[in-house]
Amino acid sequence: LSFTVDFEPIGRRVPANRGDSLLEAAQRGGIVLNATCGGEGVCGRCIIQVVAGEVSPPNFGEIAELGEADTQLGWRLACQTEIQGDVRVHIPPESFATAQRTQTEGHDLPIALDPAVRAVRDVFLPPPGLEDLRSDADRLRDALNMPALYFPIPVLRTISNDLRANEFRASIFLRGSTVVGLHPPGTSALGFAVDLGTTKLAGYLVDLESGETLAAMGAMNPQIAYGEDVMARIRHAMDNPEGAEQLRRAAVEALNDLARRLCAQTGRSVSDIADAVVVGNTAMHHLFLGLPVEQLGLAPYVPAESAALEIPARELGLEFAPGADVHLLPNIAGFVGADHVAMLLGSGMLDLGGMVLGLDIGTNTEISLITPRGHFACSTASGPAFEGAHIRHGMRAAPGAIEKVLIHEGQVRLQTIDDQPPVGLCGSGILDLIAQMRKAGILNNRGAIDGPGFEQRIRQGSHGREFVLVAGAENNDLEITFNRSDVTEIQLAKGAMRAGVEILLKKAGITAQQLDKVVIAGAFGTYLDVHSGIEIGMFPRLERDRFLQVGNAAGAGARMALLSTQVRQRAAQVAREVRYVELSSEPSFSSTFARSLLLE
Amino acid sequence: LSFTVDFEPIGRRVPANRGDSLLEAAQRGGIVLNATCGGEGVCGRCIIQVVAGEVSPPNFGEIAELGEADTQLGWRLACQTEIQGDVRVHIPPESFATAQRTQTEGHDLPIALDPAVRAVRDVFLPPPGLEDLRSDADRLRDALNMPALYFPIPVLRTISNDLRANEFRASIFLRGSTVVGLHPPGTSALGFAVDLGTTKLAGYLVDLESGETLAAMGAMNPQIAYGEDVMARIRHAMDNPEGAEQLRRAAVEALNDLARRLCAQTGRSVSDIADAVVVGNTAMHHLFLGLPVEQLGLAPYVPAESAALEIPARELGLEFAPGADVHLLPNIAGFVGADHVAMLLGSGMLDLGGMVLGLDIGTNTEISLITPRGHFACSTASGPAFEGAHIRHGMRAAPGAIEKVLIHEGQVRLQTIDDQPPVGLCGSGILDLIAQMRKAGILNNRGAIDGPGFEQRIRQGSHGREFVLVAGAENNDLEITFNRSDVTEIQLAKGAMRAGVEILLKKAGITAQQLDKVVIAGAFGTYLDVHSGIEIGMFPRLERDRFLQVGNAAGAGARMALLSTQVRQRAAQVAREVRYVELSSEPSFSSTFARSLLLE
Repeated sequence: LSFTVDFEPIGRRVPANRGDSLLEAAQRGGIVLNATCGGEGVCGRCIIQVVAGEVSPPNFGEIAELGEADTQLGWRLACQTEIQGDVRVHIPPESFATAQRTQTEGHDLPIALDPAVRAVRDVFLPPPGLEDLRSDADRLRDALNMPALYFPIPVLRTISNDLRANEFRASIFLRGSTVVGLHPPGTSALGFAVDLGTTKLAGYLVDLESGETLAAMGAMNPQIAYGEDVMARIRHAMDNPEGAEQLRRAAVEALNDLARRLCAQTGRSVSDIADAVVVGNTAMHHLFLGLPVEQLGLAPYVPAESAALEIPARELGLEFAPGADVHLLPNIAGFVGADHVAMLLGSGMLDLGGMVLGLDIGTNTEISLITPRGHFACSTASGPAFEGAHIRHGMRAAPGAIEKVLIHEGQVRLQTIDDQPPVGLCGSGILDLIAQMRKAGILNNRGAIDGPGFEQRIRQGSHGREFVLVAGAENNDLEITFNRSDVTEIQLAKGAMRAGVEILLKKAGITAQQLDKVVIAGAFGTYLDVHSGIEIGMFPRLERDRFLQVGNAAGAGARMALLSTQVRQRAAQVAREVRYVELSSEPSFSSTFARSLLLE
Repeated sequence: LSFTVDFEPIGRRVPANRGDSLLEAAQRGGIVLNATCGGEGVCGRCIIQVVAGEVSPPNFGEIAELGEADTQLGWRLACQTEIQGDVRVHIPPESFATAQRTQTEGHDLPIALDPAVRAVRDVFLPPPGLEDLRSDADRLRDALNMPALYFPIPVLRTISNDLRANEFRASIFLRGSTVVGLHPPGTSALGFAVDLGTTKLAGYLVDLESGETLAAMGAMNPQIAYGEDVMARIRHAMDNPEGAEQLRRAAVEALNDLARRLCAQTGRSVSDIADAVVVGNTAMHHLFLGLPVEQLGLAPYVPAESAALEIPARELGLEFAPGADVHLLPNIAGFVGADHVAMLLGSGMLDLGGMVLGLDIGTNTEISLITPRGHFACSTASGPAFEGAHIRHGMRAAPGAIEKVLIHEGQVRLQTIDDQPPVGLCGSGILDLIAQMRKAGILNNRGAIDGPGFEQRIRQGSHGREFVLVAGAENNDLEITFNRSDVTEIQLAKGAMRAGVEILLKKAGITAQQLDKVVIAGAFGTYLDVHSGIEIGMFPRLERDRFLQVGNAAGAGARMALLSTQVRQRAAQVAREVRYVELSSEPSFSSTFARSLLLE
């Protein structure tokens, strides 16, 4: 096995031999691609894109199937493409046989529908004539009996043709007295909610009239190409003349793409999207809007704007209804942004009463402490280790990822997503593994790997001592290990979170035992084992039933803001009420952080 | 003299020999270019651009003076450029030794200053620190004590850097509670008013605090390249996939260019322009905004929008202050647009009392009749003949243009602009010439050229009989004639106007004799001889003191709207009150028009 194939976006590296097909390599790596014909080049469903590296040239069948232009861009059939060196491959969502886990799971709280945009679904206008020379806009004002009806320029550019194409009947989307768009009679208005995470996006397509979520989808944040965390991206924006614009465009294109896919899934058009809510941390917010980030990258980390914003979608480059706005919920301060406001609303934690701790775990983890005497929030750079990055055999939550680990009486038992052969470790598996290794005595509280009874699984590797979780001989030559530097990554991540929690508790003058509830949000937070988190000291040691795992609560909050202008008003109030704690200016932060690195 | 040199933008054709310099050709054509050194290639002031045709290559001196890039774009020194074929040359304004007549002359009516944008000229903010983490936007809200202060996205994109560049001091331009821009402390806010005519633009730079007009400038409408009149341009927009966008971009670039020149003249920056008012006829309005024109080009000629509009300048591609809006006054109906509303306001004719007829003469002529019992308006396609177009020796009002003609006792006497040798006829000269030829018996009332006593000046030409106004032998070989088809062009132009006047009088049920005042606006209207206009039947035969020549009243009205939001409100009221008359649906129009063609 002389070459390596990198499969994106699931982040899986698979060894391969010259002459293997990409489909075979994918199968060896536990990646199940669509291949109904069994790799005969007949069904045309295992479409992938070769991003870099050496492979065989496209054959006639592929060119016939995909077209010459696409094959020149690297689009291929995996079963027909032979490996001739190290290769990097992009797998489009539709080529996966099993759906990837999306980052969209979350609970919906009941709210009263009060969307910003409504559709007047069937309006008929008398057509113009020599005795009726009113402008098209005035004609609509009269039909709706709204003399102050306002048409943004992109709407004005379409109404004359839209009216004539539908013989002067239309469904009219209205935001207050502003026309958002004209559509064929009967068309309902759609909303688009987005949680714009540092690593991942979650998008939701919502019917604004019924409040129903029609479709949900996750995607990677393509800004990753310019830096893994917010500080790296801010540096990219500052160091490159086109850097900020590259980041902005990458985010905008990702949102357009997500909207198009969601609409395609439901048989709708992106121009039916009449309103949108986007939430993200302050850095994502600024980069998406093209706001300057220099002053955000240096102490005291001051944003250009923290108030809620209502911006024409077209001005941002989003291809929705011509008059659609994008609503951005308010930021709190520092990097604690609108996504955390949305999480506070979407999780329902503000209304639980008592003392409530909330963690929205991601590449940046935001933490809030809600008490009757005040609300506190901070942000910690926990890094992408729980997303599988920086971990040697880490991967994202995709089929074949080890998601549960049990070490019992000297035996290691694993559970993988979709029961596929194991190909790597996703966040919840990593957390379990550390907790189980600690419990089995394979790890000490400083993170050193050792352990009587596991000698045959422990050895010295190039990154310190390592634990062999899956032996190559038992897994089609694919060995999965966990080493000292992987442990360190997790110590840093969990240490940052725990230190943030401790500082907030101290600010509020309470102890962890006084917490009534601990709310855990975020994609990783949906699947993690709370006991494992407690075992390694990531969470305070409390009874299991004080913990609530709420999934993507930021996404849920964004959907609530989409469906209710009252929720938007409450968001503004919440953002004002939360007291931001800048960890870097807390004198006790470094000692608290050092203590938090220990695996309890 | 084997070749022809076309000088733009003054529209002058000059014969030339191989080897003549462009400066010599210009001088022969009466065009006085800057050439302090007398054509030695030393002063570098006779800069022109060769747009088409064959000339000698640039010499070392020119490349040193102008740079290689500009010489490759055709920029040359006229004195160093030898003619080697037919050539088309563009003369930039700064190369003219005598200023061109601008289209900006007009009277200012006194109004109370009430601009939409004001500057808070010196605001100081406490800089951020670890104890003061407010966003830059919140910092400004607090300093101005305006909690609802709103920042459009293009402003948000600049405030953080602007604040830091000026050490947290700024002059802040505000439109209500919207921030238009941040500027160095002390900066005053400027306004930009534009009369966007079919053929010509007039721009004004105004200080919004003092109300003073700092500079005024005329320019050609570059849309002419795509069609001479509004119908030709609408056809261009409909027949070419990129047509509408070409027209829109041409107008936007012309406005940006005009703003830059006006600002350069006054030592200001275009980013100091905090507000703008643009007026034009309905077609110019739609093409400038990128609105659809298909339905405007066909009966019943319905605009997409007739209400006033307030549009972010950046959305239109105008490079003003980041939050500046462009205000478009309301259109009336058909082609009677915001320029006519501005003319009604800027001429003061609404407040004269009694019965007042107003004509805004241009390529499209708008006519209003104001009576105590109602206001009426129509639009006539009078064409560009009075701008010098379609007339064999016609030209624009530039040095050397014949602007006055007297035929007395068999003698022809001429007056030219700046007393230069005659090179062609501008609008007022054409009008005089027709009136004088008619008076001297050289023209009959149907437009035929004949006349006892002028045999030596009348001959048969390729366009029918022609009158030799200037003999080549007396004018450096440059002959100036006026032929039968020139007469026809003028008959059509004046006939269209007169027919419009007659129809409006009939609608109002009054006779011309009942008119208290006739207001004549427009660039040509500034200089024309009213008696000549009466003689050829363009205007009703009334005493001279009933006529008022008000110059560019549309430009004056645009400036008033820039300085007063109350004027904008009055404009909306005026647009509603005026009753639009669609001439093409008037049964008596064609017979009235036929009668109006006669030279009385």
